[in-house]
Amino acid sequence: MDRTDPEGAIAAAAQRCSNRGRWGADDVLGTLNFLDEAKRRAGAALVRRGASFSLAQAFGADGPQKGWRRRTNPVHTMLDTGVDAERGTQGFPHGLGGADDVVFMPLQASTQWDGLGHIFDHGLAYNGRRAGDVVTSEGDRVTGIETTAGLIAGRGVLLDVGRALGDDGELPDGFAITAEHLAATIAAQGATAAVGRGDLLLVRTGRLTRARREGWGDYAGGDSPGLSFTTADWLHGTEIAGIATDTWGFEVRPNEFDVAFQPLHQVAIPHIGLFLGEMWDLDALAADCAADGVFEFWLTAAPLPVTGAVGAPVAPIAVK
Amino acid sequence: MDRTDPEGAIAAAAQRCSNRGRWGADDVLGTLNFLDEAKRRAGAALVRRGASFSLAQAFGADGPQKGWRRRTNPVHTMLDTGVDAERGTQGFPHGLGGADDVVFMPLQASTQWDGLGHIFDHGLAYNGRRAGDVVTSEGDRVTGIETTAGLIAGRGVLLDVGRALGDDGELPDGFAITAEHLAATIAAQGATAAVGRGDLLLVRTGRLTRARREGWGDYAGGDSPGLSFTTADWLHGTEIAGIATDTWGFEVRPNEFDVAFQPLHQVAIPHIGLFLGEMWDLDALAADCAADGVFEFWLTAAPLPVTGAVGAPVAPIAVK
Amino acid sequence: MDRTDPEGAIAAAAQRCSNRGRWGADDVLGTLNFLDEAKRRAGAALVRRGASFSLAQAFGADGPQKGWRRRTNPVHTMLDTGVDAERGTQGFPHGLGGADDVVFMPLQASTQWDGLGHIFDHGLAYNGRRAGDVVTSEGDRVTGIETTAGLIAGRGVLLDVGRALGDDGELPDGFAITAEHLAATIAAQGATAAVGRGDLLLVRTGRLTRARREGWGDYAGGDSPGLSFTTADWLHGTEIAGIATDTWGFEVRPNEFDVAFQPLHQVAIPHIGLFLGEMWDLDALAADCAADGVFEFWLTAAPLPVTGAVGAPVAPIAVK
Amino acid sequence: MDRTDPEGAIAAAAQRCSNRGRWGADDVLGTLNFLDEAKRRAGAALVRRGASFSLAQAFGADGPQKGWRRRTNPVHTMLDTGVDAERGTQGFPHGLGGADDVVFMPLQASTQWDGLGHIFDHGLAYNGRRAGDVVTSEGDRVTGIETTAGLIAGRGVLLDVGRALGDDGELPDGFAITAEHLAATIAAQGATAAVGRGDLLLVRTGRLTRARREGWGDYAGGDSPGLSFTTADWLHGTEIAGIATDTWGFEVRPNEFDVAFQPLHQVAIPHIGLFLGEMWDLDALAADCAADGVFEFWLTAAPLPVTGAVGAPVAPIAVK
Repeated sequence: MDRTDPEGAIAAAAQRCSNRGRWGADDVLGTLNFLDEAKRRAGAALVRRGASFSLAQAFGADGPQKGWRRRTNPVHTMLDTGVDAERGTQGFPHGLGGADDVVFMPLQASTQWDGLGHIFDHGLAYNGRRAGDVVTSEGDRVTGIETTAGLIAGRGVLLDVGRALGDDGELPDGFAITAEHLAATIAAQGATAAVGRGDLLLVRTGRLTRARREGWGDYAGGDSPGLSFTTADWLHGTEIAGIATDTWGFEVRPNEFDVAFQPLHQVAIPHIGLFLGEMWDLDALAADCAADGVFEFWLTAAPLPVTGAVGAPVAPIAVK
Repeated sequence: MDRTDPEGAIAAAAQRCSNRGRWGADDVLGTLNFLDEAKRRAGAALVRRGASFSLAQAFGADGPQKGWRRRTNPVHTMLDTGVDAERGTQGFPHGLGGADDVVFMPLQASTQWDGLGHIFDHGLAYNGRRAGDVVTSEGDRVTGIETTAGLIAGRGVLLDVGRALGDDGELPDGFAITAEHLAATIAAQGATAAVGRGDLLLVRTGRLTRARREGWGDYAGGDSPGLSFTTADWLHGTEIAGIATDTWGFEVRPNEFDVAFQPLHQVAIPHIGLFLGEMWDLDALAADCAADGVFEFWLTAAPLPVTGAVGAPVAPIAVK
Repeated sequence: MDRTDPEGAIAAAAQRCSNRGRWGADDVLGTLNFLDEAKRRAGAALVRRGASFSLAQAFGADGPQKGWRRRTNPVHTMLDTGVDAERGTQGFPHGLGGADDVVFMPLQASTQWDGLGHIFDHGLAYNGRRAGDVVTSEGDRVTGIETTAGLIAGRGVLLDVGRALGDDGELPDGFAITAEHLAATIAAQGATAAVGRGDLLLVRTGRLTRARREGWGDYAGGDSPGLSFTTADWLHGTEIAGIATDTWGFEVRPNEFDVAFQPLHQVAIPHIGLFLGEMWDLDALAADCAADGVFEFWLTAAPLPVTGAVGAPVAPIAVK
Repeated sequence: MDRTDPEGAIAAAAQRCSNRGRWGADDVLGTLNFLDEAKRRAGAALVRRGASFSLAQAFGADGPQKGWRRRTNPVHTMLDTGVDAERGTQGFPHGLGGADDVVFMPLQASTQWDGLGHIFDHGLAYNGRRAGDVVTSEGDRVTGIETTAGLIAGRGVLLDVGRALGDDGELPDGFAITAEHLAATIAAQGATAAVGRGDLLLVRTGRLTRARREGWGDYAGGDSPGLSFTTADWLHGTEIAGIATDTWGFEVRPNEFDVAFQPLHQVAIPHIGLFLGEMWDLDALAADCAADGVFEFWLTAAPLPVTGAVGAPVAPIAVK
């Protein structure tokens, strides 16, 4: 890899990994096309104990956002409260009281899916569309996150790279996870960790564990372990339906070129059509998987279908 | 039922149906306590074809809200767009372009779960807590929706009352669904429609179907079919974990007392501790159930865990 | 005027009325260049009684907006309340209690100034700049409303066309105010109504009076009296610094071409560089002017300087 | 002053300085009652050159807020942009293009007035009202900032304590400005600095100058020069209509008691009924005053009349 030529490397990877046109010129689903009914049947069959795990971080004012590109943490305010109800200021009959609330939040403030309209390569969006034909000020009019409604439910598999290869379960910041690291983790975890077509892959680095212990610091946008740019071919070749990590930005930070910003996104989203999840909380699930040695499970992770959104919050549930 | 005495009727029903203290003084989960691992195993076992169904309405500007108690429709705006990316105004290296977005929305603007802090009875919240000890301007500090994280996944069952008892699949506005109507629907639908402990019950009235055809009109807050106040005992006795409808407000509108506002809520939430879902889109699922005669399925419906929320949006997925 | 050719009429008016380059290629102030210190001295000298008048409509949930292009009414929510303070839930020492609040609002939800970045003609903004060089998703980076900070204070003059030419003080919807109507109003009102270079002109139609009496109806975007497209030359020739009306959209509605949308804006903002105020409440001031026959006053109307805004709310004060 | 007894000191000061009932039991204006028409005439007479000065800080994402009590900086997003217009995605006729925007902001995010519903003393608001009768989740229903509409325009006077008593024009953090300091500043500045009934007083500390040079740091809520608690009697006795400073919190920080939070607010707002302005940018005006030795001027400072607001943004203009 030539650290001085991200543009060349991206172009080459894009060429090798492109799914453009694979599902037709009108396709808006990208790798979700791999997640079929058979995969959902296989996923459901993985529910053996009925134990469930939330994979969402909190959506609150104490989150990791620091204002980069106007991304704040969610601001939650009340329209009515129990204090009001108790005091009798609400005007409802027969002793009824109510509380109601609103939220203002960037759609990528906490646990989220990137939609296919989130990233462009040289002005082109997924499936070769012009970026300006897809996402205007009115939102994503083609691949808005609502087009995925009902689909993201299937077999989940956890690769706990932090636990397999890190110290005390955590990879250091700047650690670039390669295809070899992923293979080594699969080997270490055993047969239930096999990754294939239509799977929803979760990669744990331990970065969130560290933030939980030490404070957010630069969790949002700062240094972090993450996927290496070189995994583009692996991500394409495995034919996974989606991938999520416990980090802010999915790929390793600093990025692996001298001057770069999220180059793997530039291949993964517009060329592979891959759904990327970020800021997922994998710790409780990972502890359970480490305990019972089973790394596959049922996973439901439906993004909130905000019309035209290029990304969306999600409250994933894994069930084993 | 004495139409002139809602307060008396509510007090009597509350007395008969109270789950206060049932799971201890510290309990924050109410009827979700009924949804255990066995129920999740049973739910997952219902996946036979792998067909999935989104039960969420759109979260967009064209929704039903009309401003009642400051509830607007979601307002979605962009922080960055494809048009910007294409024009090259974003300043990213190597041809990367991005789009990002924010949303401002009442948490009960579209498909949602009511949390246990949403409704109070004479200043008391679920489990006998003082409303002002639970929900202040800082949100629900006791039963915030985040306490349900990871739990709402289990056996779903659809009672399509609209199809069973209505004309052309729809109940008229003002139709109060009684326990007898529910029993008749179960009888008509057959064995897969049995309702019991820990189930997540979906009741379709056809009201959303009508709004879809005729426009929102007064969908938000206006006349509607819905559960009769008299079903409080049935809701309590069945020991369901949660119930959701395709209507704005769950219960029949106008309410069944001369002067009243959502009296069944006043029993169901603070006394039964029951989770109520509103504005769910059950039509695609209902059509499938009518076609194959199977009214039970695997249901995941995790609310977005906004810290301290008294209600929250949800993107439910049913799988058959 | 050829009703079938708005594009031709706009082009011709733009040619006749252009201030492009008049104050240099870097100018961002347009007609505010006319409002100089001498004009401010003259304006302040008009204060004879010290009587003051607010010209702002309310900024609240009960406003005129109906959702057009995602313009909602302001949504005001509390971060802390007096009810909380009284109950003692806030945690402050020595008996202190506090209330705090937030607002979500379109910047043109109520009484406002249009900035120079609000309207474009064939992709060009004020002073011949490319629209995309001026206003991106990050806001107006050239003529953002903050560039006007401190400037909008000077001589105000009211032309109460509604009172001069209407029935009972109101013009009917669709009434196009021409230069002749303005001249007739000036003549009727007398010497204090003279309009000239650097003035801040207020034109009352009575449309808000009607909305106050009959309800908002289609105040936002619907039919209304307003300035005729043909006043472009008058607006240019008088060298006024700004103009505001009591209507939603400044110009007459329906517009005067068969297929059109706010054609006078398309000349006034990008070509004349004129500041347009909308939804001002002129009724109290107008009643006073009618009573004492003095139609000029000291006017301060500084827009809220939201960085990069293309329009901004304003709370104008007139003093006589 | 006993540093260990804020509650006692507050109670004593409140007793000495109370304006409760002074303007009747229904009064909502407090010290704005002092600002009469004569004062406005006197203020207008101070306009000699016509030079105008904006006293507002920017309302943008780069502001001082750090999330304390959910106060973020304003988040400004676009509904339409020039980039869209230029690309032709907007659908308007005859070449019209438009840009529009929204803002989400705490009302006290930047330059602002505190309303009379902002602070309570032991559960009581201004004029002895119960806090919960004044400010509920629906806002301030009695003294909402809209009640001041049209009033805040009159004689402004600047006391540049930073320049008079500080090093290089700035007071150090923790510097408590006493009545003696104010008197010394008046004496140093001369006759135009006299402060009396109905005046709008601006006190410059230099704190903002320092933040502008060194970065915001802890400007919001951290250490700062400011008014001493002991000025309560002076603030009451001068009968000023309002007072504003260039600091986040008006009074000296840390506060002058061992355990305290903004004790002077607790006297000034609910007892004196005094309007407090915070985060005003006084530097340009102060430089001009220092240059010409004239410290009085016309001042218009109308808060944005958000219905029910307990504080509001303002874009003040001073004219000399």
